[in-house]
Amino acid sequence: MAASATTLGLKFPGNYVSNVNNNVVFNSGEVLKMSCMHSSHEINTLLNNNKRRFLSIGTLCSNSRSHRVERVNGTKGNVIHAPNESAEEALLSISRGRFVEGMFVFRQIFVIRSYEIGPDKTVTMETLMNFLQETALNHVPSLGIGGPGNDFGVTLEMSIRNLIWVVTRIQVQVNRYSKWGDEIEVDTWFGAAGKNGMRRDWIVRDHKTKEIIARSTSTWALLNKVTRRLSKMPEEVKQEAVPFNFIKRAIAEEETDYEKIHKITDDTAEGIRSGMAPRWNDMDANLHVNNVKYIGWMLESVPKEVLKDYNMTSMTLEYRRECTESNLVESMTSPCEKVVGDSNNNSSIRKPDLQYSHLLRLLDNKTELVRARTQWHLKQKHN
Amino acid sequence: MAASATTLGLKFPGNYVSNVNNNVVFNSGEVLKMSCMHSSHEINTLLNNNKRRFLSIGTLCSNSRSHRVERVNGTKGNVIHAPNESAEEALLSISRGRFVEGMFVFRQIFVIRSYEIGPDKTVTMETLMNFLQETALNHVPSLGIGGPGNDFGVTLEMSIRNLIWVVTRIQVQVNRYSKWGDEIEVDTWFGAAGKNGMRRDWIVRDHKTKEIIARSTSTWALLNKVTRRLSKMPEEVKQEAVPFNFIKRAIAEEETDYEKIHKITDDTAEGIRSGMAPRWNDMDANLHVNNVKYIGWMLESVPKEVLKDYNMTSMTLEYRRECTESNLVESMTSPCEKVVGDSNNNSSIRKPDLQYSHLLRLLDNKTELVRARTQWHLKQKHN
Repeated sequence: MAASATTLGLKFPGNYVSNVNNNVVFNSGEVLKMSCMHSSHEINTLLNNNKRRFLSIGTLCSNSRSHRVERVNGTKGNVIHAPNESAEEALLSISRGRFVEGMFVFRQIFVIRSYEIGPDKTVTMETLMNFLQETALNHVPSLGIGGPGNDFGVTLEMSIRNLIWVVTRIQVQVNRYSKWGDEIEVDTWFGAAGKNGMRRDWIVRDHKTKEIIARSTSTWALLNKVTRRLSKMPEEVKQEAVPFNFIKRAIAEEETDYEKIHKITDDTAEGIRSGMAPRWNDMDANLHVNNVKYIGWMLESVPKEVLKDYNMTSMTLEYRRECTESNLVESMTSPCEKVVGDSNNNSSIRKPDLQYSHLLRLLDNKTELVRARTQWHLKQKHN
Repeated sequence: MAASATTLGLKFPGNYVSNVNNNVVFNSGEVLKMSCMHSSHEINTLLNNNKRRFLSIGTLCSNSRSHRVERVNGTKGNVIHAPNESAEEALLSISRGRFVEGMFVFRQIFVIRSYEIGPDKTVTMETLMNFLQETALNHVPSLGIGGPGNDFGVTLEMSIRNLIWVVTRIQVQVNRYSKWGDEIEVDTWFGAAGKNGMRRDWIVRDHKTKEIIARSTSTWALLNKVTRRLSKMPEEVKQEAVPFNFIKRAIAEEETDYEKIHKITDDTAEGIRSGMAPRWNDMDANLHVNNVKYIGWMLESVPKEVLKDYNMTSMTLEYRRECTESNLVESMTSPCEKVVGDSNNNSSIRKPDLQYSHLLRLLDNKTELVRARTQWHLKQKHN
């Protein structure tokens, strides 16, 4: 596990979100106080494991199964004072995310914006990945275990040890691509993955119909910021996460893509796009390319007809090395045969119409950045 | 005005937003019915000018100065039926935008997301421009004058005549760049500009403090989608907008940049970045490059030290021609002397530390896409 740190993952710039306040004050002077109740089992679990932390997250809870609305006269209590726009205030707070299923699942809602859709007027894979990133980043500080710095997803115990999370692999399955104005609900949770890793899953739903539109699972490792090497997980970091570990799979075991992604070579590549340069705004605060940007590069070597006529329904990315602003990148694509999850003839999985392997590498020394595998289905007309 | 249509502007893909519903139902069964009242003057103006349209937008109004909260028993009326998540529902509606200052100003609130910030952890100019685009696009259908198609900003009378809006010039002034998680409030309105054009302005505020963080003004022309030529404004299109024209300047007259932007040549360019290719997801539904993407290209020829150490505080873009997916683009930058608004020694405007002219052109035939002028101020340390 203590491999040299050629592996690179999500290192997120920015600040923590502020606390969520669920009270609503209307300009009539009435206050709606929304408090939350956990089941006694949930509370005991949380308290026994982590009393201090549970208390620190008390103001954040907004369990949909059990939240209670009280009418309170006057303006006492932890209310928002903005007479004419208080509903807006409270609602903005809610849009930052809230917990469901006890404290285990963090949910955030997004309204698709006009610039988040692609040429076919549906949300792009990059946008979906951005939503996954955003919920993951908001999740950790909302738990009250965030570290003092600005490194996203970094807990207190991690920050003491100069550790950050890096994503090593992510799989995304998309059933349907949403449209501008659609409301999307992203649930995320995490659990242990082996002795030194973490798994993070997501389920993406249409907020109105609750139809599941995408699922994702990912694995993460700890990287030492100073030595740039992968690190074992210290016991303190492990314990910090224990109360929030959630054993649930977004993607069923048999559909999870554990397979090695074979390396494309100059001989096997059918599409090559060379000399792509990171743009200034592709960079994060460490002047590394944000992982999500890799997807745009990857797609550049996919035939344009495929991008136009097919939907990417599945994608597995294996991150291998970081990319900085001075690097030029080469994108390679090749058709492949591997069918994830079809070995048991599970009829619930529609066989893809196309499958590709992808490779992103540095132009100068051919160092691999990302390997990927994608599956595609022909778009339905007039969809 | 009937010049050949080398001018290209914002042509927005997607669907209209759904109607805004301001009622809030909590799971106690109580309904908070939020209705809105206009002053009699406002209502008379609207009704006299455009009775049918006013009626069609009745459910959209949410005037902050006069909104009234009634408590209604039961679940009658136009309420949202989602017992446990009703506050969330209402939020989503509000986040789609609402009217302030009568029906003249449309306001939308954005929470800055982690992927909308740049390497210095503040919101990028591209993100700000995306917010401007989004509010403009939501504004027109919210007025009830949107056409039946999917062309954004296109009114009924325009769609009958195959007309679309194209932006010809936009000026943006930025006082401060916001951070991840900050809430931003974007106000927009429009008015006539000459006989055949439209002006659209924006004021961007910090939602919490109401501090103005950016201002923008833009001019638009009508383009015939079929002939690709600019069009005079038909009387019917003019009349359609009259009830909503608003005479107010986001940027004071003396600070408005009317000056011609001089063309950079190979001799005068100091920074050149060649051979940039549009990526698939830079395209809109017509396979033209979305205007906002030009900014990223423009910045590619600005010295990296400037991008790191300075904030762009002012930008004027002059759109001249469209760019399609097959085009390769060249970005050129040159220092310039012009100081907008300093002729009268107005002390409220801090003199910029740097000024540049920019040119984006097609690589093959040197056709101009965009001319631009930017001003920059040295970043304050530990900001």
